[in-house]
Amino acid sequence: MEQLTTKENTDHLVEAFMEVRTYTEFLCNPLQVEDYIPQPVHFASPPKWHIAHTSWFFEELLLKRFLPDYTEFHPEFSFLFNSYYNALGNRIMRENRGSITRPTVEQVFSYRTHINESVQEFIKGPHFTNEAKDILILGLNHEQQHQELLLTDLKHTFGHNPIFPIYKPGYFPTETTNKEKGFATIKEGIYNIGFEGDGFCYDNELGRHKQYIHSFSVSKALVTNGEFLSFMEDGGYLKAELWHDEGWSWVQKETIRSPLYWHKIEGQWMYYTLGGLKKVNKNAILSHISFYEAFAFAEWSGKRLLTEAEWEVASDQFNWGTRWEWTNSAYLPYPGFQKEEGAIGEYNGKFMVNQMVLRGASVGTSPGHSRKTYRNFFHPHHRWQFTGIRLAENKEYE
Amino acid sequence: MEQLTTKENTDHLVEAFMEVRTYTEFLCNPLQVEDYIPQPVHFASPPKWHIAHTSWFFEELLLKRFLPDYTEFHPEFSFLFNSYYNALGNRIMRENRGSITRPTVEQVFSYRTHINESVQEFIKGPHFTNEAKDILILGLNHEQQHQELLLTDLKHTFGHNPIFPIYKPGYFPTETTNKEKGFATIKEGIYNIGFEGDGFCYDNELGRHKQYIHSFSVSKALVTNGEFLSFMEDGGYLKAELWHDEGWSWVQKETIRSPLYWHKIEGQWMYYTLGGLKKVNKNAILSHISFYEAFAFAEWSGKRLLTEAEWEVASDQFNWGTRWEWTNSAYLPYPGFQKEEGAIGEYNGKFMVNQMVLRGASVGTSPGHSRKTYRNFFHPHHRWQFTGIRLAENKEYE
Amino acid sequence: MEQLTTKENTDHLVEAFMEVRTYTEFLCNPLQVEDYIPQPVHFASPPKWHIAHTSWFFEELLLKRFLPDYTEFHPEFSFLFNSYYNALGNRIMRENRGSITRPTVEQVFSYRTHINESVQEFIKGPHFTNEAKDILILGLNHEQQHQELLLTDLKHTFGHNPIFPIYKPGYFPTETTNKEKGFATIKEGIYNIGFEGDGFCYDNELGRHKQYIHSFSVSKALVTNGEFLSFMEDGGYLKAELWHDEGWSWVQKETIRSPLYWHKIEGQWMYYTLGGLKKVNKNAILSHISFYEAFAFAEWSGKRLLTEAEWEVASDQFNWGTRWEWTNSAYLPYPGFQKEEGAIGEYNGKFMVNQMVLRGASVGTSPGHSRKTYRNFFHPHHRWQFTGIRLAENKEYE
Amino acid sequence: MEQLTTKENTDHLVEAFMEVRTYTEFLCNPLQVEDYIPQPVHFASPPKWHIAHTSWFFEELLLKRFLPDYTEFHPEFSFLFNSYYNALGNRIMRENRGSITRPTVEQVFSYRTHINESVQEFIKGPHFTNEAKDILILGLNHEQQHQELLLTDLKHTFGHNPIFPIYKPGYFPTETTNKEKGFATIKEGIYNIGFEGDGFCYDNELGRHKQYIHSFSVSKALVTNGEFLSFMEDGGYLKAELWHDEGWSWVQKETIRSPLYWHKIEGQWMYYTLGGLKKVNKNAILSHISFYEAFAFAEWSGKRLLTEAEWEVASDQFNWGTRWEWTNSAYLPYPGFQKEEGAIGEYNGKFMVNQMVLRGASVGTSPGHSRKTYRNFFHPHHRWQFTGIRLAENKEYE
Repeated sequence: MEQLTTKENTDHLVEAFMEVRTYTEFLCNPLQVEDYIPQPVHFASPPKWHIAHTSWFFEELLLKRFLPDYTEFHPEFSFLFNSYYNALGNRIMRENRGSITRPTVEQVFSYRTHINESVQEFIKGPHFTNEAKDILILGLNHEQQHQELLLTDLKHTFGHNPIFPIYKPGYFPTETTNKEKGFATIKEGIYNIGFEGDGFCYDNELGRHKQYIHSFSVSKALVTNGEFLSFMEDGGYLKAELWHDEGWSWVQKETIRSPLYWHKIEGQWMYYTLGGLKKVNKNAILSHISFYEAFAFAEWSGKRLLTEAEWEVASDQFNWGTRWEWTNSAYLPYPGFQKEEGAIGEYNGKFMVNQMVLRGASVGTSPGHSRKTYRNFFHPHHRWQFTGIRLAENKEYE
Repeated sequence: MEQLTTKENTDHLVEAFMEVRTYTEFLCNPLQVEDYIPQPVHFASPPKWHIAHTSWFFEELLLKRFLPDYTEFHPEFSFLFNSYYNALGNRIMRENRGSITRPTVEQVFSYRTHINESVQEFIKGPHFTNEAKDILILGLNHEQQHQELLLTDLKHTFGHNPIFPIYKPGYFPTETTNKEKGFATIKEGIYNIGFEGDGFCYDNELGRHKQYIHSFSVSKALVTNGEFLSFMEDGGYLKAELWHDEGWSWVQKETIRSPLYWHKIEGQWMYYTLGGLKKVNKNAILSHISFYEAFAFAEWSGKRLLTEAEWEVASDQFNWGTRWEWTNSAYLPYPGFQKEEGAIGEYNGKFMVNQMVLRGASVGTSPGHSRKTYRNFFHPHHRWQFTGIRLAENKEYE
Repeated sequence: MEQLTTKENTDHLVEAFMEVRTYTEFLCNPLQVEDYIPQPVHFASPPKWHIAHTSWFFEELLLKRFLPDYTEFHPEFSFLFNSYYNALGNRIMRENRGSITRPTVEQVFSYRTHINESVQEFIKGPHFTNEAKDILILGLNHEQQHQELLLTDLKHTFGHNPIFPIYKPGYFPTETTNKEKGFATIKEGIYNIGFEGDGFCYDNELGRHKQYIHSFSVSKALVTNGEFLSFMEDGGYLKAELWHDEGWSWVQKETIRSPLYWHKIEGQWMYYTLGGLKKVNKNAILSHISFYEAFAFAEWSGKRLLTEAEWEVASDQFNWGTRWEWTNSAYLPYPGFQKEEGAIGEYNGKFMVNQMVLRGASVGTSPGHSRKTYRNFFHPHHRWQFTGIRLAENKEYE
Repeated sequence: MEQLTTKENTDHLVEAFMEVRTYTEFLCNPLQVEDYIPQPVHFASPPKWHIAHTSWFFEELLLKRFLPDYTEFHPEFSFLFNSYYNALGNRIMRENRGSITRPTVEQVFSYRTHINESVQEFIKGPHFTNEAKDILILGLNHEQQHQELLLTDLKHTFGHNPIFPIYKPGYFPTETTNKEKGFATIKEGIYNIGFEGDGFCYDNELGRHKQYIHSFSVSKALVTNGEFLSFMEDGGYLKAELWHDEGWSWVQKETIRSPLYWHKIEGQWMYYTLGGLKKVNKNAILSHISFYEAFAFAEWSGKRLLTEAEWEVASDQFNWGTRWEWTNSAYLPYPGFQKEEGAIGEYNGKFMVNQMVLRGASVGTSPGHSRKTYRNFFHPHHRWQFTGIRLAENKEYE
């Protein structure tokens, strides 16, 4: 662990801290006050809550713990902006976040400013330990995760408004296309899986361990809108044999017939983007599909999804980073996984059931917040993230 | 019907129109932009929606129908701010109103200003007929209903926020107490029920008809918080025999143990008012109870609720107007009730099942918006209105 | 009250008792053991439960209360076969009745025999008081109500079995047709409503009182299948304006497009009867519709349903007794209604909210169990009873 | 594949067939007709359905496919007793199985006899191919799975009946205790996982493949009731930090405070067994717990559950076969898993999401129906199977 006593080091940390904090505010710039309030579905959160909760994290886990004379900004905020940390006392029921109009957006930004100043002083001051530094860096990564959620939650709100608002005037999201074609093949053998190195990683990436992997080949390109349209036109959503039993129930019960945000308007497939409603581009990479849809598409293609270990081993051989890629791996602990004591231990471990792993990163992922060992995870029916499909098949190594 | 061609008449109508419209804005003055957005429960609406919908009513049912060259303010508003008028095309699902952040509050107030100007011109112009005048007046009464809902919906949002916001600085709602004691007795016989006279009434008050009423006596005072506390302390919420079967299920399932907005904090009963959290005043008149609770309390008291006809006949003999009073009458049509053609016919008739009638008015009712034949109605479990209890008993006339 | 000391009187009561008890068993004769078990929906009950509960009533409210040395048949039956009498201790959750396989059907019939013998002895013995006699007669009427429910609950089970079982071999339910046509007209004035006379009635019929009724005319015939088909073919299920708001939600959510038990098979409307699947007979009287459907049909016809008081006043002028007829009256207490003390007080009063009154009787009603003051009641969406529609309209008396 | 033309071979198969079929009937011997009907919860099935469905399997997948002139026993049975095979046409909704009283139990046993005779003839006849033999053996294993479900479903029905029926007179289930103590340690390295050999296995066990396993030690004994009582008494059900997030929600929502079938009666922990209600034996092996509870108990113990590969590798070193043991592995395909074409392909593959793997076998498993590569699977909240806990920990090989 590097020495923290030098001014150069702390300057660097202050800079990193402010860079992440400023980026959150940059994302919020185009928002109207109204946009900060709603929670469109129970698994999303209002932007105001993201703004406040990412500050709360630094106050609760850093300032209150390490600064002997720190006074909290507001005594109720600890309760209002806790997310799921049971160890830190009660929290407001997740599904009620969208009715909390006060504190106002302005007050929440004052809270933010207060935290920014306090943390900067703290970094430069005498109480900033190695342990504090680790939590600071965890907090910055935590905030980056919320930056992506802020965008996808906002897209959910805008994408379900009948007037389809535009995120910012002139905003035109690049429609990502594949840069590569063809397949890469991986050789059978023992591989090391999990994070190694000096940088930051989450606890769920630790426990670097050996896995035996059988040979397979993997597509360098992600599935496109056009390919998924072929699946739809071939009746993919109507063929029970392509789906998991629970996926099929989901399709039936929710009457799913296309990816999220797609609308057939006067015979033309359109989709909502943060730049407004647009014609579906067949060459662009598919997004906003659930694990169930990813699996069914793979079945229909006569191929399969990767496991997360396969993905990690092969990831040097293809471009990634525009879509979170569904794997066929359930989110489970690595051998030797140890969750930390207290609230920080609740970060990852307690979600290790009933969720599927995504690998890669997306167009919504914050700069610098990705690496090949990163494990993201969502329930198999969720599709409001920028999710995509990469196909693989069993193959002898050539 | 009075002549509308005189300037004096139209001046009077313009004045009445602006008085009601201005009162809505007066109620909104203390709000922050944030407060306009949430829909805390599916049966409530966001303030922004109330602001827009009351304008929509004038645009849709008056300006579009009577002004030959009227251009609508925004083509999507007809859809966005329709409430339940099936005859006027699709409408946004009632439970999704709280996620519509755009148009902004400012835009909705521009819409309001536009409607205000257009309606004023329309009243003074050549297309303003007797029929239009009737709809104008209906629209003003409609807006007054939404003024009360705006307050009670807002109270629901604030009353469920853990920091219990205050409606406006220094706001201190008068705690209403009874001005009278004792009982009035009504003599058996035939009475005329329903509206008569020249003023405005809703279609559900029409069809003035005869009812035979048996003698009874009625309390001049409404039930107080202190009396209801006695019921609570006597285990009223735990005694199945006092409740309707469905009331008992509701109490069990929702774990109801006190009126809405009451909280026992450190051994002291407190309640949320728009002026903040306060100690329960035992002498103040009880509010925020469901029909189920009103009925159970009456059972416990050995008395009963009035029917709506009894209430109408007796209402000259007691003070009313601070609490909507639950009656034991289901909301049903009067003999000869005819609903009007088209959208206006949807105003009242289609709700005549599974709801109970309230009579009187409340502290939240707008000035001038009450009369003794007025029929309000809610489901028996609802209690976010300013509802109260008046007791009666069968008695020979003295 | 008649003297009970004569042998003639008690003989007559024993005979009446056994007649009702035997009729229940007669209804059960065609059943297989399997048929006694399921509870197809939470508002229905298994035949075994009806068999046991009607015996339980006599044991719990008669034998245990009036016979000093009575020993209950089985200590758990008091709990197992209580229906909704909160005053008599816990009861099994209503929705779980269909999983109680033990005691067996045979054991429940042994219980029945034991109760039959005990009650007969009790009637002839020294403890049989006037009060006991009243409860005995209430118990017989209670059992007759369950006889009709047994049939309609059984029809629900059979009518949802894909092989559509027949109630008994050769069973061919008479398809009731109207014997009369035309309208009867009732004159405006004060009428007495409610039961009078010496025979049995329920507490909800008591409190004979005056009602002022306005003139109206009423159809002597009930609505037929053919007439309802015209409503269906005219898009009655698709026209929001014909329905209550909650009726419309029900139609949408449950995708209701025809009466219960109707199936369109190869272009032909069929319906399930206890005699099997049959072609819909257009001349037969309509059955198995909800209050919502009855109301919408009346709207479509340009007519209306009767109130229950109107029905009672007019009932001498038409044939009734094959279909329970939906009225537009909510089930509410008559003036002066007093519920009795203890468990018997739970019989009727606690259901007086959110239900609509039916008048008349049906093909499933037990012999002797009907009179013109009888008030039946169900929730507005229920339609598994033999319900029908009689139309009325406002009219000057001719 | 062995020659099927010899009489010896077919005699052996007929014998194996009748042995399995007879065992199902042996399990049903103590049942009353009533017991065959209810479906107590949507994930369980009525005994009558198990009896019929296991016959249906042979009729649908064997007799109809391989016997050119086979006539089905009853044309509706194909629909009534299909379970989840979408490829074979419609099926009755799973949650409605408990309302199908007809065909009667007797008719279903006639169906069974008919199938028994037809299959025996078929085995001895000229159309019996190698492919048919494979399906016959699959059908026998399928029936053995339903034998265990029949017992556990029946236990659910009896265990929720307030009179706690006994499965058969004098039935006294052996309370299984641990035969061994201590830990076994497994050495790090590459292991082969999955089935190999000549006997039967399911498709989900195939694809024998290499896995790299890190060293660990595993308890030879399963967790006992006494050990679980310590967890309960230490507040295990009240400590959020021990649970998965979804497990914690389940505990809160369902108010779980003990294993299924446990009741605290007058201060004493009792549990329902098929032999009736008994005092909890602290030395007996724990059963009827969910994966969530198994995981929380392991957390509380400072240990962990095994993965399914670890279990398979270590299973030769401990006794197993009395409790299905929850692993911390999600039910996913092995590398190279290929589901078969058509209906048989629906047997396993489509359930490979959101379920957890159990390994071993239980007291309810049919004779001969277990092996160390067997993969059973249930949702993490299910606990009506005979489930148990085996603890492991990371440890260097000694």
